[in-house]
Amino acid sequence: MRFNFITLFPDKIESYFSTGIPGKARTNQVIEVNTIQLRDFAGNKHNKVDDTIYGGGPGMLIQVGPVYRALESLGDKKGLVILLSPSGELFDQQLAMELACASDSITFISGYYEGVDHRVTEHLIDREVAIGNYVISSGDLASLVVADSISRLVPGFLGKEASLAEESHNAEEELEYPQYTKPFEFMGWTVPEILVNGNHEEIRKWRQKNRKTRNHP
Amino acid sequence: MRFNFITLFPDKIESYFSTGIPGKARTNQVIEVNTIQLRDFAGNKHNKVDDTIYGGGPGMLIQVGPVYRALESLGDKKGLVILLSPSGELFDQQLAMELACASDSITFISGYYEGVDHRVTEHLIDREVAIGNYVISSGDLASLVVADSISRLVPGFLGKEASLAEESHNAEEELEYPQYTKPFEFMGWTVPEILVNGNHEEIRKWRQKNRKTRNHP
Repeated sequence: MRFNFITLFPDKIESYFSTGIPGKARTNQVIEVNTIQLRDFAGNKHNKVDDTIYGGGPGMLIQVGPVYRALESLGDKKGLVILLSPSGELFDQQLAMELACASDSITFISGYYEGVDHRVTEHLIDREVAIGNYVISSGDLASLVVADSISRLVPGFLGKEASLAEESHNAEEELEYPQYTKPFEFMGWTVPEILVNGNHEEIRKWRQKNRKTRNHP
Repeated sequence: MRFNFITLFPDKIESYFSTGIPGKARTNQVIEVNTIQLRDFAGNKHNKVDDTIYGGGPGMLIQVGPVYRALESLGDKKGLVILLSPSGELFDQQLAMELACASDSITFISGYYEGVDHRVTEHLIDREVAIGNYVISSGDLASLVVADSISRLVPGFLGKEASLAEESHNAEEELEYPQYTKPFEFMGWTVPEILVNGNHEEIRKWRQKNRKTRNHP
């Protein structure tokens, strides 16, 4: 899976994919990460990519031209183009699976300030995605969240395939049971005896019973 | 507002708060960012902070001891303690506002691997929060999303207060209208004439009519 990030802050993206599980996945070529500095496509000597809003209103918008040229520069490596925006469809695990299968290349466009010129949304993207019902200061974190979530579904991203199969969210709305590791006792807080007695069937039942579920309307 | 991040990857956190709006807010002391390397509190010479799961299962869990000691090291600067976890309550703009007012200091604990020992959840935290109905490879991105969203509500984080007042999500479920910036024409795509004719009342009506709403069940 190849991810292109069109961003004003390539360093933040590079930093995320430099260590930990995402870093390993990149090193092992399970994923490919390509950052594109939007300002390189400004088309003016000040590298300015934003301007004021037609009809008035506070703040600035990212202009359509730089985004268009940044996308063009990717040629056929552009793949599926996703704009991160609080107005987008709500990202969830089902959408992560859908996007993981939809293309072997995904380009993320980060919004900033008040957002991007609406012509980007109308003409240049395939999907508009929001990571939640809240506002954050840029699309960079949102791009990373979506890319990370999709990455995890690419075979080889996680060390053990089994870990993916058992985890929460794969079974719809079923969330994880309480899990404990060593030491058995800490500050007087102990691990439930049933988990250390070695009876697999009882452990299975206990976990089923103690599974936390979240009820969405 | 002071944010403490208990993490295995302080560099990713530092990188996020080094540039852009979050960087400016930190430089201007609107927010204070403090990263704590969990491994510094491992309590063993290999700096190991995870172990296998009682009762069996794939993967590893973060141990309770290192988290306990990392929190203790913060003393009264600990403030509200939030664990990021896919099993947590779903973060939204209302929760962002609640948390922004709840404390002048927030400590985020990032989960990794299969998560953290359940005794952390039972004894050491105030809230367990999920940023969405999807899984990501660590709690670091989730911590950043929550911190960023709360930061934006701290006076002075955004340049202009007006920008905060008008934006999406403040009016419940009301999302933004299409916005355009220069140039008026690009690739034959033009800005709606009404936005450039200067009649404020008509612009207001057009925006109201074209406001995008998302219907959550």
